[in-house]
Amino acid sequence: MESDSSTATADSSTAKPLSRDNLGGLLDSVDAFLFDCDGVIWRGDSLIDGVAETLSFLRSKGKKLVFVTNNSRKSRRQYSKKFQSLAISVSEDEIFTSSFAAAMFLRVNNFPQDKKVYVVGGEGILEELQLAGYTGLGGPEDGKKVVDLKSDEIFEHDKSVGAVVVGLDPQINYYKLQYGSLCIRENPGCLFVATNRDAAGHLTRSQEWPGAGAMVAAMCAVTQKEPIVVGKPSTFLMEFLLQKFNIDCSRMCMVGDRLDTDILFGQSAGCKTLLVFSGCTSPSLLQDPSNKIHPDYYAGKVSDILQLSGP
Amino acid sequence: MESDSSTATADSSTAKPLSRDNLGGLLDSVDAFLFDCDGVIWRGDSLIDGVAETLSFLRSKGKKLVFVTNNSRKSRRQYSKKFQSLAISVSEDEIFTSSFAAAMFLRVNNFPQDKKVYVVGGEGILEELQLAGYTGLGGPEDGKKVVDLKSDEIFEHDKSVGAVVVGLDPQINYYKLQYGSLCIRENPGCLFVATNRDAAGHLTRSQEWPGAGAMVAAMCAVTQKEPIVVGKPSTFLMEFLLQKFNIDCSRMCMVGDRLDTDILFGQSAGCKTLLVFSGCTSPSLLQDPSNKIHPDYYAGKVSDILQLSGP
Repeated sequence: MESDSSTATADSSTAKPLSRDNLGGLLDSVDAFLFDCDGVIWRGDSLIDGVAETLSFLRSKGKKLVFVTNNSRKSRRQYSKKFQSLAISVSEDEIFTSSFAAAMFLRVNNFPQDKKVYVVGGEGILEELQLAGYTGLGGPEDGKKVVDLKSDEIFEHDKSVGAVVVGLDPQINYYKLQYGSLCIRENPGCLFVATNRDAAGHLTRSQEWPGAGAMVAAMCAVTQKEPIVVGKPSTFLMEFLLQKFNIDCSRMCMVGDRLDTDILFGQSAGCKTLLVFSGCTSPSLLQDPSNKIHPDYYAGKVSDILQLSGP
Repeated sequence: MESDSSTATADSSTAKPLSRDNLGGLLDSVDAFLFDCDGVIWRGDSLIDGVAETLSFLRSKGKKLVFVTNNSRKSRRQYSKKFQSLAISVSEDEIFTSSFAAAMFLRVNNFPQDKKVYVVGGEGILEELQLAGYTGLGGPEDGKKVVDLKSDEIFEHDKSVGAVVVGLDPQINYYKLQYGSLCIRENPGCLFVATNRDAAGHLTRSQEWPGAGAMVAAMCAVTQKEPIVVGKPSTFLMEFLLQKFNIDCSRMCMVGDRLDTDILFGQSAGCKTLLVFSGCTSPSLLQDPSNKIHPDYYAGKVSDILQLSGP
């Protein structure tokens, strides 16, 4: 689904194709570029063509680079290692994951340290919870647990769980759905936090896979409750980002491949927005009359920035 | 949560408590009683007090008995065996399960026999599909399958799958979500059929567990599509029931423990309705101002019929 910039011919009432004419103005008006990762920087474990050179180019122009991802399977530390393995130098401080967002949400809401957090999701959430001083339960450890469903079975759950965090979980099972829903329904005041609600994501190079939205929807159906969403398009993370970089939102540009998360997030925060077609959005999806989310600019892929700036 | 009829003091704008005064009129005006099973006849594998005697009483009065359940884990044959094991004689013809409904839906829509059906759910769906002449894939067999998510992994799916049936699946996993969603998204014209959307059910005696609604919601989230629902509250099964029993809907009474499935189903079909509090609905839930579904009658449990008819 990757398309060259020359084929990025989507039209929309407001979105403009990134071009030699408008790139200079965009670069002048922006001090920081916020990048989504999956479908923008890489697909699966493969870097998208020209990304490394484009990031170097932007750094050479004095632009701050920030990576804001809804992927909760990794912690910030693990993400930094993934960048390293792809020969791109990015520090933990420049990375904002939805796993980190979940832990920060609990911290800013003074979630008590003696309460536990049940995790339907990956190692990244557990690691961020631990770094924030919290005790996580569940996660990969519960991935192999099965339930008997014998008539007299009593499914026990920890009454000291005060929050359930749901993220993308390739080891989703019935045990976790029951555990999480019992905590939410039966533990007084138990929080229901979703890292994000993405329908699907490019977990491998050539295919989309069920996203956190699937696990969150299942938990909503059982509990008949709606979660607090901390990842994109929620702008919850923005205040941490502002503290760190001290740049006005209007001088940031969010670069992403998803209209309903990345572009909506950027617009909600007051950033400029650039949609790339290297991930899950096609030009025809942008053009579809049912689509109400229009970025400021669109391009085939991130490296169009470098290409259009050249001689 | 079982409550005696004497404690069934719910009030509502339209619902009346079943009483000695109105029971005679109800019995006279009804030729067939339609019963939900889980939370009405049994809870888990335990018969609810007085059910056997009440069913015998109704049969002795010449009433037809029909069992209409959203439980898709069993086939009609398996359900009949469950009744037998509880010392209640019920024939397969008197049982209408959502697994049967799924197979009948495909048949009345002339689903081609050379197309396959992918099942996210239990053995009951596979058995009913087979009885209807269809080839099912998935189900329990895929319960232990795991995905690698290596960058170059290609997840293959059968292009001849023309329908995905989703029901309650205690062996739900990521593999099945990916398989079903690929069929729905990539196989042209592939149907998305849900046995039902119940949030939760009493799979064991003392606890509720995630219902088919959880698996269906997850599949909806991934595919961004809505299913065709064949179980309650859809009245799809009613035409089969009418063919079999030749009784006017207005002379039927639907007895169930769920407002949004059983009572809504009965009302949609033009039946009389009796809510019992032996399952997932409490008197306070019936009374709650947010509840818009009001049965004709309510009672503590099925055996109130017998008790109120006595001397």
